[in-house]
Amino acid sequence: MNDALAKSAAELDRIGDGSQPAVSSDLSYPPIERPRASFEPVAMQHFLDGEHRPVRELVKQIVTQPEFRYFAGTDHLAFRRQVLAWTKRLADAGIGRIFMPKNFGGEEDPAKFMAAGETLGFHDLSLLIKFGVQFGLFAGSIQRLGTESHHRKYLVDAASCQLMGCFAMTEIGHGSNVQALETTAVYDPTHEQFIIHSPTFSAGKAYIGNAASDARLAIVFAQLAIGGEQQGVHAFLVPLRDESSRPLPGIAIEDDGYKMGLNGVDNGRIWFDHIRVPRTALLNRFADVDSAGKYQSQIKSAGARFFTMIGTLVGGRIAIAASGNSAAKAGLTIAIRYAARRRQFGPGKPPGKETLLLDYPATQRRLMPLLANAYAVDFALKHLVALSAKTPDGASRAIETLAAGLKAWSAWNTTRTIQAGRESCGGEGYIAANRFAALKADTDVFATFEGDNTVLMQLVAKNLLTDLKDHLKDLRPVQLTGFLLNKKMSGFTRTMPLFTLNTSRYHLLDANVQLSYFKHRESGLLLQVGGAFRRLIKNREMDAYTAFTRLQPELLELADAYVEREILERFTAVVENASDRTLHTPLRRLRDLFALYRLELHKGWYLENGVMSGFKAKAISRLVTALCADLRQDAVALVDAFGIPDSCLAARIAL
Amino acid sequence: MNDALAKSAAELDRIGDGSQPAVSSDLSYPPIERPRASFEPVAMQHFLDGEHRPVRELVKQIVTQPEFRYFAGTDHLAFRRQVLAWTKRLADAGIGRIFMPKNFGGEEDPAKFMAAGETLGFHDLSLLIKFGVQFGLFAGSIQRLGTESHHRKYLVDAASCQLMGCFAMTEIGHGSNVQALETTAVYDPTHEQFIIHSPTFSAGKAYIGNAASDARLAIVFAQLAIGGEQQGVHAFLVPLRDESSRPLPGIAIEDDGYKMGLNGVDNGRIWFDHIRVPRTALLNRFADVDSAGKYQSQIKSAGARFFTMIGTLVGGRIAIAASGNSAAKAGLTIAIRYAARRRQFGPGKPPGKETLLLDYPATQRRLMPLLANAYAVDFALKHLVALSAKTPDGASRAIETLAAGLKAWSAWNTTRTIQAGRESCGGEGYIAANRFAALKADTDVFATFEGDNTVLMQLVAKNLLTDLKDHLKDLRPVQLTGFLLNKKMSGFTRTMPLFTLNTSRYHLLDANVQLSYFKHRESGLLLQVGGAFRRLIKNREMDAYTAFTRLQPELLELADAYVEREILERFTAVVENASDRTLHTPLRRLRDLFALYRLELHKGWYLENGVMSGFKAKAISRLVTALCADLRQDAVALVDAFGIPDSCLAARIAL
Repeated sequence: MNDALAKSAAELDRIGDGSQPAVSSDLSYPPIERPRASFEPVAMQHFLDGEHRPVRELVKQIVTQPEFRYFAGTDHLAFRRQVLAWTKRLADAGIGRIFMPKNFGGEEDPAKFMAAGETLGFHDLSLLIKFGVQFGLFAGSIQRLGTESHHRKYLVDAASCQLMGCFAMTEIGHGSNVQALETTAVYDPTHEQFIIHSPTFSAGKAYIGNAASDARLAIVFAQLAIGGEQQGVHAFLVPLRDESSRPLPGIAIEDDGYKMGLNGVDNGRIWFDHIRVPRTALLNRFADVDSAGKYQSQIKSAGARFFTMIGTLVGGRIAIAASGNSAAKAGLTIAIRYAARRRQFGPGKPPGKETLLLDYPATQRRLMPLLANAYAVDFALKHLVALSAKTPDGASRAIETLAAGLKAWSAWNTTRTIQAGRESCGGEGYIAANRFAALKADTDVFATFEGDNTVLMQLVAKNLLTDLKDHLKDLRPVQLTGFLLNKKMSGFTRTMPLFTLNTSRYHLLDANVQLSYFKHRESGLLLQVGGAFRRLIKNREMDAYTAFTRLQPELLELADAYVEREILERFTAVVENASDRTLHTPLRRLRDLFALYRLELHKGWYLENGVMSGFKAKAISRLVTALCADLRQDAVALVDAFGIPDSCLAARIAL
Repeated sequence: MNDALAKSAAELDRIGDGSQPAVSSDLSYPPIERPRASFEPVAMQHFLDGEHRPVRELVKQIVTQPEFRYFAGTDHLAFRRQVLAWTKRLADAGIGRIFMPKNFGGEEDPAKFMAAGETLGFHDLSLLIKFGVQFGLFAGSIQRLGTESHHRKYLVDAASCQLMGCFAMTEIGHGSNVQALETTAVYDPTHEQFIIHSPTFSAGKAYIGNAASDARLAIVFAQLAIGGEQQGVHAFLVPLRDESSRPLPGIAIEDDGYKMGLNGVDNGRIWFDHIRVPRTALLNRFADVDSAGKYQSQIKSAGARFFTMIGTLVGGRIAIAASGNSAAKAGLTIAIRYAARRRQFGPGKPPGKETLLLDYPATQRRLMPLLANAYAVDFALKHLVALSAKTPDGASRAIETLAAGLKAWSAWNTTRTIQAGRESCGGEGYIAANRFAALKADTDVFATFEGDNTVLMQLVAKNLLTDLKDHLKDLRPVQLTGFLLNKKMSGFTRTMPLFTLNTSRYHLLDANVQLSYFKHRESGLLLQVGGAFRRLIKNREMDAYTAFTRLQPELLELADAYVEREILERFTAVVENASDRTLHTPLRRLRDLFALYRLELHKGWYLENGVMSGFKAKAISRLVTALCADLRQDAVALVDAFGIPDSCLAARIAL
């Protein structure tokens, strides 16, 4: 500033006539300051990429080609065409075939497919969703719910985008409660056909990706009725459009129009007017109707059958959590790099030398815990993907619970992370060219689709209560406490007074101590909610639904405690097992910050339950601030290690 | 569902040939359920409207006219033209003249002007911002910083939109630290001119509303230098464009392009290349340069002078807080009305009868505290407006502090409220036609402009520390504690043990008890931070800047405590003074919920400092849940009372 003033004063004689350039040569921001980190970013990137590094590289190679430059206009119809063309390029590169059976040219590798989707999360999220709808929900459901003949007829064309399709589950009136869908599929034995019908406005399928213009075939979830008897929700293949993309007779389609984000995806609503499809249109792996109209299923319980059929959603939930985390990583990369070049305010000595945003404790406290979360979610999801790949059909109650919980937690974390990143970039964060506009708008619905977050968290809590009940059958109260302590806690209650008061750094950075606190919160809430539930039912004679509803706020907290304990456990295992020891320090710091930041956030619970002293809570807060400062030196390297291509970041403040 | 199935089965004989309508007659959502409220919504609306009801009605009358229908396209240049035309319509109706001096046809009524702006917050927010830039920042600064000749020359044309202008303070390199702006204004005594210049890229004025296309005149903030001596930041009138809207020689303007939101406003960047303006271009109310080049100001301290000159921002901050709260009210109205018509899941008895979202404790807990916040912010801002209108030039340290704090708190509350509203509407919330897309994108920058929220909260804390220091001069430590207790607390520490443990409903709903807790947190944090600050400076010999920076996390918490105490005090006064006693019950419930929800949120602090027992914290949580349920019956009436016109809400799920 002083220099500038002096220069201006010296230039007094020169007359400003507009012939001189108005701007001097420094036409951009100062460089991003990259201090020497405690580790090699490339080593961390390889660690994060893991065994699926090749497919991640392949996806990056594709999306960094010139034709994948982000769509710049505001015409959402042109945007949709662009995204369709991109999707076909992915299909051409074989990405859509990865999960398919080997006898159809696939690799039967869902974990690899998931890694591809996670990497796509660095690029335009409309493309990611279109990719997910076409290959994951549409082709994936044909594979998972259909049988050989369906596979033969459709899979290759679906994976190559020769046949675009959609997954028509959600209805206007029913998104979360899909067991109460209104669309009907009535079997007509005379013609051996199902009649698919939308009896009301609210029975219309809603927000269906690919429905507004591209899909020619739909997987329609409908209430199957045979001879007046209801058999519950089943999936049917229903043609939507002819070869020239005109809707078929009896199919009414409405474009969902402009959305907050994801405008490269053609979402739409569909109503069916007594559409007849052959008996073979039923995706019949788990239940079938024979030519005589007899219903048969090897899964006897209607509930179990339904659960198996919507198991397809588990993969989708993991994918949403992972790609949402990729978007959060992009937001963090932009925010942290900008904070490493932007200066504002300063000590005044030397004059004009202002402080880097990243050196402010407020910035560190705002961004570092979110950086730790991005790593934490990453590791937890990799664990879940591996678990899911090992399980036949990819679903068990444990996996369903974890997928639901991580999806919700990750989606909310994505929203918070992108918001904090945007705010910490100030005005630049608001300019569309700096990417936050798209990141924020596109990921906003991650909290809703593939299962509303609040509903999913209740599903988590319900499953935890069911687990508890299963054990309660065999246990008396005393044993129950023992069960919980064994299963969830490391028994620290026995030494409670000392534990509660210990404020030493050594103690607070002990992974077992951190985990004990997480487990204590989870099991404490489980016992509390379980007890309250039983009292409501027994003493006040409520039905289970009413009792469960009454306890919603507590159930949501329980689910949160479960997810965070799962994440911390996984993070701890990752730190312990990391073969590259040069990564140990940053990983441990991130783990510590994740753990202690959550303890600080939930200190109210720990304090009110007497398992943490006020002094300890304050010590934790101080340590969180210190850990944030410790990570400052590594912060840029830690986002560089995400390995997001420049053309995907595409934010001028971050390059 | 059962009925539908039965109907479908009965229709088996009918052949679905597409000739029948695909959708039955119930082409929309079921009606919003409006149970009998405990008060008359109209009475509450009148209460909220207050003395400025006429201008609120006038603004509503204007923006509900057909030509104010929301812009539907995606071409942001057309959107800008639309918003400019709307702004002119407001000028034609005399809205832009309200604040002006009476001798120029104005009413000199800033409070009325603020009410107009608050009401505009129900409509398109690009219009609100354009209105604020043109009438508040541009015309308002000419009035406030200029003298008679400037008023005569520009005010009438500015208020009528004959002369569009802009307020060019922020630069690419300096947004928050405006004392370090780089733009220079060097006085040339020979020609009696100032030479306005942008010496670097980062000196470019940035995000300047009206700059990209409409402004012909700019108020430019620049470092004044006379004869090599720096006099600090001053404001100058600098022509930008000729009559045909072409930028003048030496002026380089760049369009900020597409933004996350507010795309109806033409934000741009401006660089000046030695632009010469006459001596009279200095807005010279607080400082002047005479023809001989002698600088003079009646305000001796450079700091005080700067503070006075940027006092214009105080009005802007109040306006942002108020209109942001209007947007939050719109989001709440949509979310609560939808929750009062949308059903999902249910007890199964009677079959098909599902539960209204608004009857779920999770929904109540999500939306009711935010509803209470909207009322709370409303009352706090009305108080601030009244205070500010009574103060000559509208600025004192107390007002500056309160405006900064309420702006930041309200902007963050707006972001959270709209986000929660969007999520609680599920997929419908994501469809642009339901308004959340615009509300969210447009208000996002409220946390940044007119002062970055985090910086403003530090300003609040700094002012509180300065107040404390002013008192410290005269007081010994013992007296200090007394001072704090007298000023901020009601002395409950004397009866601490009983107070800490009391969990009775009567006690928790006592306004004095609630306020005591708020005051205790504020004064406790003030004492703590003040002590830490002094220790860092005295014992560790830090300079004030470094010590202040080190304490950022604590300072932000202190500022939060101050703002919340201010809000609760005002809310309590409103409840006590409400002349319409029929409104007493809902107002008291909202006040209680506001207070107890904050106590729950901050229970960690109260517990760790030993002023709340664990039992009490749990009792508070139960009471929050109960209050949310108590408000359920009144919820729709409470949003109806905001009085937002249907054409402004414009969300199909809320009408």
